[in-house]
Amino acid sequence: MIHHFTPTRYHVTIGWHEPVLHVKDGDTIVTTTVDARGRDHTDTAITPRGNPQTGPFYVEDAEPGDTLAVHFDRLAPNRAIGWTGRYLAPNVLDPGYVRNTAESLSDAKTVCRWEMDLDRWTATLIDPADTRIGRFTLSLSPMLGCFGVAPSLGQAISCATSGPYGGNMDYKDFKTGTTVYFPVFAPGALLHVGDGHAVQGDGEIVGTGIEISFDVQITVRVIKGKTIEWLRGETDTHIFAVGNARPLDQALQHATTEMARWLQTDYGLDQVAAHTLLGQCVEYEIGNVYDPAYTMVCKVKKSILRQIGVIA
Amino acid sequence: MIHHFTPTRYHVTIGWHEPVLHVKDGDTIVTTTVDARGRDHTDTAITPRGNPQTGPFYVEDAEPGDTLAVHFDRLAPNRAIGWTGRYLAPNVLDPGYVRNTAESLSDAKTVCRWEMDLDRWTATLIDPADTRIGRFTLSLSPMLGCFGVAPSLGQAISCATSGPYGGNMDYKDFKTGTTVYFPVFAPGALLHVGDGHAVQGDGEIVGTGIEISFDVQITVRVIKGKTIEWLRGETDTHIFAVGNARPLDQALQHATTEMARWLQTDYGLDQVAAHTLLGQCVEYEIGNVYDPAYTMVCKVKKSILRQIGVIA
Amino acid sequence: MIHHFTPTRYHVTIGWHEPVLHVKDGDTIVTTTVDARGRDHTDTAITPRGNPQTGPFYVEDAEPGDTLAVHFDRLAPNRAIGWTGRYLAPNVLDPGYVRNTAESLSDAKTVCRWEMDLDRWTATLIDPADTRIGRFTLSLSPMLGCFGVAPSLGQAISCATSGPYGGNMDYKDFKTGTTVYFPVFAPGALLHVGDGHAVQGDGEIVGTGIEISFDVQITVRVIKGKTIEWLRGETDTHIFAVGNARPLDQALQHATTEMARWLQTDYGLDQVAAHTLLGQCVEYEIGNVYDPAYTMVCKVKKSILRQIGVIA
Amino acid sequence: MIHHFTPTRYHVTIGWHEPVLHVKDGDTIVTTTVDARGRDHTDTAITPRGNPQTGPFYVEDAEPGDTLAVHFDRLAPNRAIGWTGRYLAPNVLDPGYVRNTAESLSDAKTVCRWEMDLDRWTATLIDPADTRIGRFTLSLSPMLGCFGVAPSLGQAISCATSGPYGGNMDYKDFKTGTTVYFPVFAPGALLHVGDGHAVQGDGEIVGTGIEISFDVQITVRVIKGKTIEWLRGETDTHIFAVGNARPLDQALQHATTEMARWLQTDYGLDQVAAHTLLGQCVEYEIGNVYDPAYTMVCKVKKSILRQIGVIA
Repeated sequence: MIHHFTPTRYHVTIGWHEPVLHVKDGDTIVTTTVDARGRDHTDTAITPRGNPQTGPFYVEDAEPGDTLAVHFDRLAPNRAIGWTGRYLAPNVLDPGYVRNTAESLSDAKTVCRWEMDLDRWTATLIDPADTRIGRFTLSLSPMLGCFGVAPSLGQAISCATSGPYGGNMDYKDFKTGTTVYFPVFAPGALLHVGDGHAVQGDGEIVGTGIEISFDVQITVRVIKGKTIEWLRGETDTHIFAVGNARPLDQALQHATTEMARWLQTDYGLDQVAAHTLLGQCVEYEIGNVYDPAYTMVCKVKKSILRQIGVIA
Repeated sequence: MIHHFTPTRYHVTIGWHEPVLHVKDGDTIVTTTVDARGRDHTDTAITPRGNPQTGPFYVEDAEPGDTLAVHFDRLAPNRAIGWTGRYLAPNVLDPGYVRNTAESLSDAKTVCRWEMDLDRWTATLIDPADTRIGRFTLSLSPMLGCFGVAPSLGQAISCATSGPYGGNMDYKDFKTGTTVYFPVFAPGALLHVGDGHAVQGDGEIVGTGIEISFDVQITVRVIKGKTIEWLRGETDTHIFAVGNARPLDQALQHATTEMARWLQTDYGLDQVAAHTLLGQCVEYEIGNVYDPAYTMVCKVKKSILRQIGVIA
Repeated sequence: MIHHFTPTRYHVTIGWHEPVLHVKDGDTIVTTTVDARGRDHTDTAITPRGNPQTGPFYVEDAEPGDTLAVHFDRLAPNRAIGWTGRYLAPNVLDPGYVRNTAESLSDAKTVCRWEMDLDRWTATLIDPADTRIGRFTLSLSPMLGCFGVAPSLGQAISCATSGPYGGNMDYKDFKTGTTVYFPVFAPGALLHVGDGHAVQGDGEIVGTGIEISFDVQITVRVIKGKTIEWLRGETDTHIFAVGNARPLDQALQHATTEMARWLQTDYGLDQVAAHTLLGQCVEYEIGNVYDPAYTMVCKVKKSILRQIGVIA
Repeated sequence: MIHHFTPTRYHVTIGWHEPVLHVKDGDTIVTTTVDARGRDHTDTAITPRGNPQTGPFYVEDAEPGDTLAVHFDRLAPNRAIGWTGRYLAPNVLDPGYVRNTAESLSDAKTVCRWEMDLDRWTATLIDPADTRIGRFTLSLSPMLGCFGVAPSLGQAISCATSGPYGGNMDYKDFKTGTTVYFPVFAPGALLHVGDGHAVQGDGEIVGTGIEISFDVQITVRVIKGKTIEWLRGETDTHIFAVGNARPLDQALQHATTEMARWLQTDYGLDQVAAHTLLGQCVEYEIGNVYDPAYTMVCKVKKSILRQIGVIA
């Protein structure tokens, strides 16, 4: 079944909020998200800033201990104007460099503005116009920055951070075609979505991607009785596990551990096989290194899994 | 001029050691390296383990404050047998998972053995033979794990770690065709090379790639009066800066700061241009997350630099 | 006014929960807390484990942007039996040491039991009885491990962690006689208290102090219009600021920054004075190094503040 | 035997340098150190800056695998003028705070000057004279900031950092009366001493204590066949183990692991006894949080060891 849902309120925490819609295993939701500052498809501020979330959606039969699979059928900007932070975040630069260059950062709250061309699938820097890169143009690569299911224990957690339930991860492969697997902590899972980016460099190191409102279509599926500890995902080419923590070292520990479990529990590899395969084939990618929790992604190519005969 | 150099002794530190050969700007060196355990092309242990280095090579005219450019003309395994660690390093896993799974790691010092097919350019796991992945075969992707120039202040630093001078970085793009730029701290730069890997996953998370002896051909060039703070490099497709430190967060700060300097100082971008470009286009990759210092690589596509007209 | 409050329900998150009692500026609350596993003064489990909190208490007139001062009039164990974790947490040990010693940790969930002598003010280890330290006896030093006010944005956050609002900090000077200052995020502040420890080493490195139910008496005061960013506190001898984050380096940054602000904003020191004083007089102490966020405390002696004439 | 040694050259690395004096087990050395900038007891710069070290001293019979015990008989400033850094290091402050306050740090290289009164045992700030703390006076608490034995593998490591061999640790209890135990890596141990501080706050957070030249008297002892992994020490009241690394979390792991080993191997505690004792009695203190490696000290009271009968 396809649900068309028009949001009327938003949450800046991911939590055990009142569901806005009940859906079933296999259902599709077509909806929209506002941008990180609460601006909609007309670039009008309709809700307070802070990665406001659409939802939560209650998925029937999803219970604590299950896994919720969410396929991103379509994620796409739905307006002409996006914006970005203008300066590198001080936490991604050497502290001494920050001290010595800070004088030039007096307009640190000013943003850059970008114009979308949704036909040519590009974004072009239009303000400021006087920098060395001029009308800098990039191909769009739309992704969701912040989304998740309700965390454990009835928690409600700020959309500025992340954890085992998802949150503000800003990982580039949370894009159309990707499937994300969530541990379910609350009855109905309570799925939230928000914070679309038209483009984003690794790490979200200016504190933003090209922030913009989105059209979102997703399809949900409940995997009964399957328990995972951290987000997992799947693209055309890879499986991946997501760890969220600071320092990055700890995020990497979470992601690597989840992947080691996955290979052994789901794909039946013995420990030496799993460790040896990861040792010579693992890939890492970085999500957010801006927020209180950083995001590390641990990936394995599906071609490798096919080669060893554990997927078709 | 091409120098053919056959090493007779090796160093397990990178330091102000007696040079084994004097070369000039533009010269090429053809030599060999032993594997991480000091085993040569006949798989004979000829020197103590610990990433033994060939060299150092004294490059005429390279003085402190200059930059040394080293092009990796050819890096290739030169024997049939390589080996890898058998278990994930405990520092890349959740501490609680290590505690709970440690019982099965009793043979933690045992290695896996791989057979090279240098015609088909593959490595095949031959020992242990009884794991779920059987005779697991991977394409070769040879790279140097540990190399560098003499560090500042007359230091001699263990080949188990890394710093602004290079060291044990284990980054996959230190491969044939890459150029690496080093800050020069000692007269003659004193270049060391060693620790070849036939294949390696990101992070070197079992503590090894497929460790093997190498044939190495490199060409050196001195860039007088140019001072850099951390290693830089160039592949066909990217420029990159390397940060080495723990935690990864700090390695990322070093690498990002060096890239921000690079874009502004060498390519003439103003601060807003450099920061905005990095914000939406930066890529990160991970070197070693096994050693006392971890390695983070900050990359920008050359196609982006071409688009803004700062390279041809 | 003195309120005697007997709790009937508990929360394992600190959040915007329904207040159990409204109190006024200057009021005193006399109440009790259960232990970390939800066991009361009769050692009966009456609520689920997870540092259950008594409260929240609504303090009239406390509004976002104000500061809430809470004086710990009396914190004391109120039963004869306490318990501790039996093994060092794996995150406070070298990863390789954990791997190599983990075999002996098979009963990691077993606890130690301690008997209180509330007259002699001691705790004595009674189970296991067969270790080298036998009936090991320590003087009591009662403290609250976990408490706080409702966090920003309507959040509800697990009592396993901490932040600017307080939480599970496990710092030894949260004891009788100490005053704690909280930033107020919610109307009424919504104060929660729980997790008493009869004794605790720095860092709570076995994951517990001597966990026990408490009698608690506190007096609250509202400081209108005063805004702080992290918890502050005051003992007979010191002022202190508390930072909560991982890694400890970041917790230290938060605590040091809050102290630097305090000296300049509240005590009128110029920047050179504040920095120079901290440089030669600062003291650090460690709270929890067990939880997702670690706790660092930055202290200055009151005798120093008296010497420079900024306090009486 | 007492050796009076007048240094004529200094090292800014700790390494396998030519010994300046050979001494025997039980011998005492009376010597001097210059300050961190290479200035002697007349405040004259006689050697380059960078924590220049006196020595190394070769201790007969000390061999790799032994432990060297060094008793600090007397550590005392020997001139009237000391200096300190004027601003908090940017790495101990929140990155955003650094960015926002950096404008006022334009004279970041300027130092403060302090006058010693060696009769009254005080230091008084004399320059700048116009801050809110005026002629701020502190009691002396002399300590050695940087010292160590030659590291493993023939390494020579900058006096800006630290490791298992010692180095720049800046811990306040490296003072008169303390005994320090070093793992021996080189024949003769090769002891270096330098970097006296008349006073220092925890962490050395302005990058300096009150830096000054010192009179140093030490007595050495060789403990044959005893192997330790990190520095240990002993004061009148405590035993302690020292971990050096970043982040602080890792330094804490090293120190805690060394202490757990110590209690079990040297004092014969079983694992549950050692872990339980540490859990409720451990104390942590912070050395340097300024350098590439941070320093964490893990302490246990001797009174506790006496109570359980493992020391007299």
